Order: sequence, then structure tokens, then C-alpha cells
Amino acid sequence: MKTYFDCIPCFIRQVLDAARITSDDKQVQLRVLRQALRLASEADLMQSPPAMAQQIHRYIRELTGNPDPYVGIKDRFNKAAMQMYPDLRVLIERSPEPFETAVRLAIAGNIIDFGVSCDVEESHVQTAVTESLEGSLDLGALAQFKEAVSRSKEILYLGDNAGEIVFDRLLVEWLPSSKVTFVVKGGPVLNDATMEDAVITGMTDVVEVIDNGSDAPGTILDSCSQEFRGRFDRAELIIAKGQGNYETLNDIGKDMFFMLRAKCSVVAEHLDCRIGDMVLARNRAGTISKKS
Amino acid sequence: MKTYFDCIPCFIRQVLDAARITSDDKQVQLRVLRQALRLASEADLMQSPPAMAQQIHRYIRELTGNPDPYVGIKDRFNKAAMQMYPDLRVLIERSPEPFETAVRLAIAGNIIDFGVSCDVEESHVQTAVTESLEGSLDLGALAQFKEAVSRSKEILYLGDNAGEIVFDRLLVEWLPSSKVTFVVKGGPVLNDATMEDAVITGMTDVVEVIDNGSDAPGTILDSCSQEFRGRFDRAELIIAKGQGNYETLNDIGKDMFFMLRAKCSVVAEHLDCRIGDMVLARNRAGTISKKS
Repeated sequence: MKTYFDCIPCFIRQVLDAARITSDDKQVQLRVLRQALRLASEADLMQSPPAMAQQIHRYIRELTGNPDPYVGIKDRFNKAAMQMYPDLRVLIERSPEPFETAVRLAIAGNIIDFGVSCDVEESHVQTAVTESLEGSLDLGALAQFKEAVSRSKEILYLGDNAGEIVFDRLLVEWLPSSKVTFVVKGGPVLNDATMEDAVITGMTDVVEVIDNGSDAPGTILDSCSQEFRGRFDRAELIIAKGQGNYETLNDIGKDMFFMLRAKCSVVAEHLDCRIGDMVLARNRAGTISKKS
Repeated sequence: MKTYFDCIPCFIRQVLDAARITSDDKQVQLRVLRQALRLASEADLMQSPPAMAQQIHRYIRELTGNPDPYVGIKDRFNKAAMQMYPDLRVLIERSPEPFETAVRLAIAGNIIDFGVSCDVEESHVQTAVTESLEGSLDLGALAQFKEAVSRSKEILYLGDNAGEIVFDRLLVEWLPSSKVTFVVKGGPVLNDATMEDAVITGMTDVVEVIDNGSDAPGTILDSCSQEFRGRFDRAELIIAKGQGNYETLNDIGKDMFFMLRAKCSVVAEHLDCRIGDMVLARNRAGTISKKS
């Protein structure tokens, strides 16, 4: 997905949020803000929005000397989600449709996204769980997803955020573990899950976990390691969580299922849904891209 | 008022709105957006927000060759407000507190502001009128305002927008006309009222109308004509309508009454009120500036 004009003011606001999360120093915040404005003024809008985000978060880490500004937030939401994990696991097991419930919860976990808004509280996660059990889900896509999972020999599950990774684990536990590889980011960016989060939340105990070699908040293939790209090419099925993965991969011609909560007007319009909707959408060669 | 960090993403969004109002050409919109990003990246944030807006709207007019992109909007809201005028005049006359009602309506008219948001419809004006009659208003400030009006020999009423000027006229008709001069902008910017609007809406039939010689969406004294600055210095009382005038004048040490609807979080916080509140606030040497 390209960067739409409406992404630009939203990007500037996100960067201001990120600067404030990273530093209380107004001068630092101002330098970050000015750098984001400069970047955006020269940006190649044919690139996806996470390409700009990757650049500015590198700048923030360099400027502040803080290699992982969101580590506290990631820790907080990993812990909150781990506390919810036992009950949610029972909820899935007792559900008449365990697989569907696991998918619903995996999508609910995508609320823990500090990219679009830094206004995420633990209470929102609980609300998202409740909503996800009742909310509308494309059951046709779910049937296709189930079929694709059972048919595919190699499945790559592209994770999104810390905390959310616990919800991914709930779904991964209902997938054939020997066929699934879970993917985390190669380095810290926003609250995206890295290998540390996969270890802490026990994802590494369930399936193989690799990192993609990149610090983009999404999956920009050119920015990923050769090893990851090889795995990506070989995989028969890609599960891609979150808006960042949608924005960076929706034009790629692979059999892919996107799972996310739509959190901004541009992505919602692109997916022909409303903000807040649970999305399970299949992608073949960018066919779900609806907005010109 | 200086430009706060939160003004920056909002400014970029406002500029995108303005670019879309002015031109359907995506390349023109993109050039305007990039120019706004460049301007903001280098902006002196000790200046008030309208200083940046003045620059970008000059750029928009130059780039598009359109000297008055909001002329259609101004015309629409002048007409809509003129249609409401007879009924509102009767409403004031029949009110137990005509002066207070006139002030309330003058503030209601400030809803017609395309600077903060371009999402203004005629129906919102009707709603604003209804709300203004019941909404909370600082009656202490109103008493002071009434007293200042009767005491002052020279009153300068700084207008804000087209359409809104009809609501200003309703109040001006309850002021001592020989003492009042109404001020419009020196040239088109956003939907701010110019001399043309004052003539069309009959303001020129009621009181003397002058222009301030400036195309800033507010009153940046350095940008105004020497003649206007002389009048400003001499005036014993300034009535300043709208956010733009508040943002540019609140630090000036004059006896001034600001009348506006708070339309953004920064101004609302600055005034210690909520978005949507009706504000009648006295200013002496910037004493109402509450946000550091």
C-alpha cells in the first residue's frame, strides 16, 4: 500500500506521540518533530507508511541513545496478556468453535498497537476480547483460512506487537506446530515484538521463532534478511498480523491471510470496512486492495 | 500564543484540507503538502499558529493562481447567515436580556471557521445557535464587557469569518455605533471576512468598516498596515473574534475581550475550557494565558 496524503498528518502526530514516550526533553521532542517533517516533505509516497516510520524510529533511537524506547510498554503488555492467557486458553477449549475463537482472540490482541495511537490501556484489551467474541467476522474467509492451514506444508506467521504475541500464541497452539514458524522483528521498533518477547511469552516453547532481520514496523522485504526472504518465498501460506504488515505486504502476490483490527481511516477504506472492525482477509496478488 | 507541538500535525491536516478545497489536482495538493511540511520543519514556534497559516495560504494562492479559493464557501455562508438574520434579530429584540443574547449569537457564529476544520455545514450553524442560547457563558465577563463598552470612546471589533460577520452585525447593532469600527482582513485568507463580505452583509451600513492590511488568519500586528496599527493603539477596547485573533493577540497588553468557540485542544487548554465551549474572556496584558 502506498502512503496516502491522509497518512502524512497522522504520521506527524504519531511521531510526536513517540517522541513524548521516548523523552521528556522538549528540545529532543522538537528535533524529532522537525526531522519527521523534513522526512515527510521529501518522502517517496509510493513507499508504504511503515517505511517512513522505520526511518524516524531509527532517528529517535540514535538521537536519544535509547535502543528500545518502548521496552517498558512491551513489558507491561506482555505481563497483562500473560495474566489473561490461562483464562483465554480455557475459553477457547470450551468454545463450540475453538479454532474460530482462537482467530477472534488473535485479532483482538491487535488492539495493543502503539503505532497508530499511544492511547492504549490494559482495560482496552479486555474490551477488545469481549468485542471480538461477538463481533462480525468473515466466516467465508475463516473457512478458507482453515483449509489453507491444513493444506500448506510451510506456514509463516508474521507477528506484530508485544502483548499481542500472547494472543498469537493462543492461535498458534491450534495450528499444526511442526509446520508453523513465528516471525518477530529483527530489532526494536515501536512496541513490535522481538525475539525477547517471543521468549518471555513462551512462543519459543510452542513453535520455531525466527526474526526477519529488519527494524521496520511491518514487513518491508527489501529491509529483511536474506534468510527471512528465503523462508518467505518458500512458505505456502503467510499469516500477517496487524496494519503494518498489511500496509507493507498487501501488494505482494502470495497466498496470505491478514488479521487485524482496522485502526485508521485509510486502512479501513482500503479494506472496505470501518475503523474498529475485525479483519480476516485473504490476499492473492494484492486482490484485496480496493482503494485507488 | 506560541505554536505548540500539538499544533504541528493539526496544521498539516488543515493544509491538506485547504489544498483539497482549492484544487482537485493531486500534484498541486502534493506540492502544497510538501511545502507545508518544509515550512513547519523550519518554523519559529515562538510565533503564533496563524503566522504559519498565513505563509502556506499565500503559497496556495500563488501556486494555483487562485486569489481567493474560499470565495464560494464565503458566499454560501454569507447567504445562509443572511437568511437567518431577520429571525435572529427578532430573537434578540424579544429576549429578556437582548445584549446577552446578541453576545451569545456572535459567539455561535464563530462555528463558521474553515481554519480548524473544513467540515462545517449550514446545519451546524443552526445547532450552534440553539446551543448558544442555553450554553454556559461567563456572566461576570459579560458584565465587565458591558461596562467596558459603555466606558470606552473608541471600540475596535476585529471580525473573523464570512458568514460569521452576520452574527457580528447582530451584536454590533446593540453597540453604540458611533464608537465602533469593525475590522476585516486586508486580503483573502481561508474564509476570513474581507471588505467584500462587510459590504454584502450590510455591516458597512451599520458601522465604519476598515481593513487591517494583512492576509493573516488572525491579527499579526507586524503584518498589519500602519493605519490599522494606529487605530489599534488608540482604541480603548478591542473585541476580538475567533481563535485566530486569540492566538495572535492574547499576549498583547491591551484591554481586550475575546469571543470564540473553542475548537481545538490547544486553545481549549490555553483558555482552561473544553472544546466546543463558548468563550467570552477578558485579557489584560495576557493575563488569561494559562498554559505554559
